[in-house]
Amino acid sequence: MVPSSSQSAPAVSAVRSGVDRELTSFCADHRAQLLEIGEELAPAMDALEAMVSGGKRLRPTFCYWGWRGAGGAADDERVVRAAASLEFLQACALVHDDVIDNSDTRRGLPATHKRLAKLHTDQGWSGDSEGFGQGAAILIGDLCLAWSDEMYQASGFPTEVLGRGRRPFDAMRTEVMAGQYLDTLEQVRGTGTREAALRVMRYKSAKYTVERPLHLGAALAGRYEELAGVYTAYGITLGIAFQLRDDVLGVFGDPSTTGKPAGDDLREGKRTLVVAETLTRAGTADAERFRSLLGAPDLSSASVEWMCSLIEESGALSVCEEMISEYTDRAVAALESPRLDASAREPLRALAVAATSRSF
Amino acid sequence: MVPSSSQSAPAVSAVRSGVDRELTSFCADHRAQLLEIGEELAPAMDALEAMVSGGKRLRPTFCYWGWRGAGGAADDERVVRAAASLEFLQACALVHDDVIDNSDTRRGLPATHKRLAKLHTDQGWSGDSEGFGQGAAILIGDLCLAWSDEMYQASGFPTEVLGRGRRPFDAMRTEVMAGQYLDTLEQVRGTGTREAALRVMRYKSAKYTVERPLHLGAALAGRYEELAGVYTAYGITLGIAFQLRDDVLGVFGDPSTTGKPAGDDLREGKRTLVVAETLTRAGTADAERFRSLLGAPDLSSASVEWMCSLIEESGALSVCEEMISEYTDRAVAALESPRLDASAREPLRALAVAATSRSF
Repeated sequence: MVPSSSQSAPAVSAVRSGVDRELTSFCADHRAQLLEIGEELAPAMDALEAMVSGGKRLRPTFCYWGWRGAGGAADDERVVRAAASLEFLQACALVHDDVIDNSDTRRGLPATHKRLAKLHTDQGWSGDSEGFGQGAAILIGDLCLAWSDEMYQASGFPTEVLGRGRRPFDAMRTEVMAGQYLDTLEQVRGTGTREAALRVMRYKSAKYTVERPLHLGAALAGRYEELAGVYTAYGITLGIAFQLRDDVLGVFGDPSTTGKPAGDDLREGKRTLVVAETLTRAGTADAERFRSLLGAPDLSSASVEWMCSLIEESGALSVCEEMISEYTDRAVAALESPRLDASAREPLRALAVAATSRSF
Repeated sequence: MVPSSSQSAPAVSAVRSGVDRELTSFCADHRAQLLEIGEELAPAMDALEAMVSGGKRLRPTFCYWGWRGAGGAADDERVVRAAASLEFLQACALVHDDVIDNSDTRRGLPATHKRLAKLHTDQGWSGDSEGFGQGAAILIGDLCLAWSDEMYQASGFPTEVLGRGRRPFDAMRTEVMAGQYLDTLEQVRGTGTREAALRVMRYKSAKYTVERPLHLGAALAGRYEELAGVYTAYGITLGIAFQLRDDVLGVFGDPSTTGKPAGDDLREGKRTLVVAETLTRAGTADAERFRSLLGAPDLSSASVEWMCSLIEESGALSVCEEMISEYTDRAVAALESPRLDASAREPLRALAVAATSRSF
């Protein structure tokens, strides 16, 4: 995963394979439950399972290392199950996000609502295929959200341990949905400020992807109070750096890495920090033209190219790259805390580097 | 509430006011949490709170009487909180259902996505008002779903008691979403059979509205095993009778009762049992005409009138009224079980009558 720190790769891949195994087992049980209600639910279950069978498993990985950093045992299957439950929350967020943004693809495959719309068309059902796809995707996302806390509660920890984890678990869900709402709001209000972009990153990405999963791991290990500060210092800076990398890839990145064509975020009109910095730094005329092109669904390749050069020439790209580098350094520095169990230091360092590099 | 059984009204209204109180308190805490993230979340919180501040509180009421029927204490605030958490699940179901069906109103007020679309228009934000409204409503529904289990877990019961309740709590969520999916599927496949309509009623209404809330109350009281059968016998029959009453009101009922104009279900093309019976019983030409009108968004009042008369003349209406009556009787008969605590017998009988009469 990260050439410069190959010693941590087995640890990370072990978490991933454990998470895969637990999700597969949970899905098998719940597929049986759904098919008992009606065999026609099979395509919905297929679509749901496709959403939880891919991805980088970032949140479970941070949850696991949050546990280890708090002195949790290396080979406890319960923490892998609790960590895996976060993938259902993420699946809900992605499925609903794709409906909200009307995205066509996700990880290079048709988005869930598109997949179900195609089923409608292929079967020759009556009414509107798009509408059916969206409705089905909303329900599939709801199932994912319900199954997230069902899997968490069924992870095998004693109920009082699960109770300790509820604080970060609950905060995480409220924060990601609030962040998502603010993001949606930002697209239509278009204030385009650096502060607005940073707030969305804080809630939708930094807390949700890094800080809260680490907090959950610490809480399950019974050391939330001692480690919350360390994990916040690491998690918020790393989460912002990670989101910035994602934003840069969303503009310039090759489709093989992100599963999205270059310029996709520009076509979708995402109000990222890269955009905010470009609007602030460019001349008035350029900024105005950039703003008018942003979010145009029929954006030409020539326009995308022009926007990309403005992002570079205005200095916005280097500002973002510098921020990624500085925030990653600050995240890694936070790992020096003596409160952190030594076993987690190198894996968390490697994760920080991997999550903010182009190779992840 | 029910003129013929006024003695139970105080008991039912006490549950309602307790549920109102707990929801108000939970919402106040969570409003503060959201506003700390961003003040712009206030309109979303207003819309969310509007969705949980109305309604008949049917599911909490059944949960409470399920607890009492299992010998639970009359004045335990924890069961009121656990029961109230079901209103957040219901709010999610309604908000998302209205997006899926593109309904304009809910309980006589604008549906959540319409309310947020109006905010977009009023504020003069950029982009598509409808799209913003739908996106915001999806996220508001997600918050409701997350807060449902957060409120349940925070109801104050010892964690092992909460653990006992998870089986019906989790089953309830999966079943209502699966039932909703099958309902959506039925609208577009249009098999229009009695069996298909009955299965949707079973999962989307009977188990979700009556059986599982009763099961939850029994599980919290520690008597799930003994009472599950009694509550299933009462809950499934009553739930189907209740849904049939709702379907009849959705076709004929006056807007003051349902908050929806007469004929609304016909305009929406709902594949209810009333419709299935009409299609089975009418002559071929009439059935064909009925089928072609069903779901037409511009359905004229004259067409609605013709459809209503066909429902009556075909005998479908009397079949449904007979089923309501018979199923309600069967539900009430199930209450004779000696396993049921005597204190719950009369309230559950009164609820059965009220939930299936036009006056509820």
